[in-house]
Amino acid sequence: MKPALTLLKIGGNVIDHPDRLTCVLGAFAGLETRKALVHGGGKLASDLMVRLGIQPKMADGRRITDRQTLDIVTMVYAGLINKNIVAGLQRFSCNAIGLSGADANIIPAVKRPVKEIDYGFAGDPSPENIGAETLERLLEMGLTPVLSPITHDGQGMLLNTNADTIASAVAVALSRRYEVHLVFCFEKNGVLRNPSDDASVIALMDESLFTQYKADGTVTAGMIPKLDNAFAALRNGVAEVKICSPSGLTAGGGTRIRLNLLSPAAECP
Amino acid sequence: MKPALTLLKIGGNVIDHPDRLTCVLGAFAGLETRKALVHGGGKLASDLMVRLGIQPKMADGRRITDRQTLDIVTMVYAGLINKNIVAGLQRFSCNAIGLSGADANIIPAVKRPVKEIDYGFAGDPSPENIGAETLERLLEMGLTPVLSPITHDGQGMLLNTNADTIASAVAVALSRRYEVHLVFCFEKNGVLRNPSDDASVIALMDESLFTQYKADGTVTAGMIPKLDNAFAALRNGVAEVKICSPSGLTAGGGTRIRLNLLSPAAECP
Repeated sequence: MKPALTLLKIGGNVIDHPDRLTCVLGAFAGLETRKALVHGGGKLASDLMVRLGIQPKMADGRRITDRQTLDIVTMVYAGLINKNIVAGLQRFSCNAIGLSGADANIIPAVKRPVKEIDYGFAGDPSPENIGAETLERLLEMGLTPVLSPITHDGQGMLLNTNADTIASAVAVALSRRYEVHLVFCFEKNGVLRNPSDDASVIALMDESLFTQYKADGTVTAGMIPKLDNAFAALRNGVAEVKICSPSGLTAGGGTRIRLNLLSPAAECP
Repeated sequence: MKPALTLLKIGGNVIDHPDRLTCVLGAFAGLETRKALVHGGGKLASDLMVRLGIQPKMADGRRITDRQTLDIVTMVYAGLINKNIVAGLQRFSCNAIGLSGADANIIPAVKRPVKEIDYGFAGDPSPENIGAETLERLLEMGLTPVLSPITHDGQGMLLNTNADTIASAVAVALSRRYEVHLVFCFEKNGVLRNPSDDASVIALMDESLFTQYKADGTVTAGMIPKLDNAFAALRNGVAEVKICSPSGLTAGGGTRIRLNLLSPAAECP
């Protein structure tokens, strides 16, 4: 049986609130499985850009990363946020090690080709190129990797990368050796039937239910890429994906997602 | 016999010049010993502070680190500079891993007590607290640690730390297992007899010569703390210290410093 590993993804809604972040880090530090964390950027990078008189540019909800934007996200994501998370986990006696994708070549990526939009220094990683063996060795040393959403092209260039994509790619890469539980921690209690009712959490979802929810409009536009991402991870070996609020990390609650809830394993949990 | 390890310290005079930095990283990547790198900050942090309307504060040549200064040095040192050095080394097929002192608890430090001057969030490490075992395991995995001058207090607080001090402390800590060659790479060709003559390099120095050079004024004020630091490292197990320019890293040249040049080992090099 593979050992369990919890891979937690936290985004801006956690990072931008110091109290919430401390609470999540404390809960995460207390998990008894092997564990790793992937963090996004939050609004700190945009705030810094505004202070420096640089206009943040977005297209389809993604940041366009020109050269000076790359320097800023490298500073904020791989420096300020990553090291404060690491120090925060060390405080809870969790031996965290903060890494970008360039470190130990853990996440090589390809600069996104220019099509209709030039995203600049944006990188796309693939699960098959993740340095899974290095991550495994760090995990077996008792370390907890904390990954920032900065990757590199192997030619000396850093690249800005979507943190959800990194979480999925790393989860898939580690699932050869671990039973990976991928947890996306965000501002809602889970996937909601009614976006304005925080109690309307869909507790369990599989791919056929997802298809149905998409068709009847239960799942909203913003949630669809997250769930597409989750099902892609499940199809490639990840044991379970959970989408939950900070409090759902240790308590029950949140939306648990499996490929097929009708499989015998899911019927008898 | 212990395996050799080269620990290179680079400062602002290298970091602030991209071409010089690339040249140093290429030479460093080509070294066949085990290796690690410690970098300082250069003027990027002060430049960013000025752009943000924050006045850099110094006392006795050391930065006073208030809360917003701490955020900036964390961004610039542990983020921008560290990750660009790592990506630059990866380009030269050197499997670098960038770390702050908080990562894997490699450099715990104590916040400097307030005496005449309050240095703010400045941290002082001790060789005996360095995570030498973790560093050794990373080195034996074939990784090259790249250390930024940010440490932590173990209670969740990051601390700004002098890079020369980190280089010496890490060199001493690693000397139990490795024959450590500590190299300080800076703008001059070495320790000069005549500061205005770049060819007047003192090729070899030991402690009795240092005492003599201090007495007769050959060694200038700015160099004395560097050399004090070097001799402290040698007294605590480091095999050799070298002070040289970027080009001296691989070629001969620079000032080689040993504890006692009259010892048999030094007489027959």
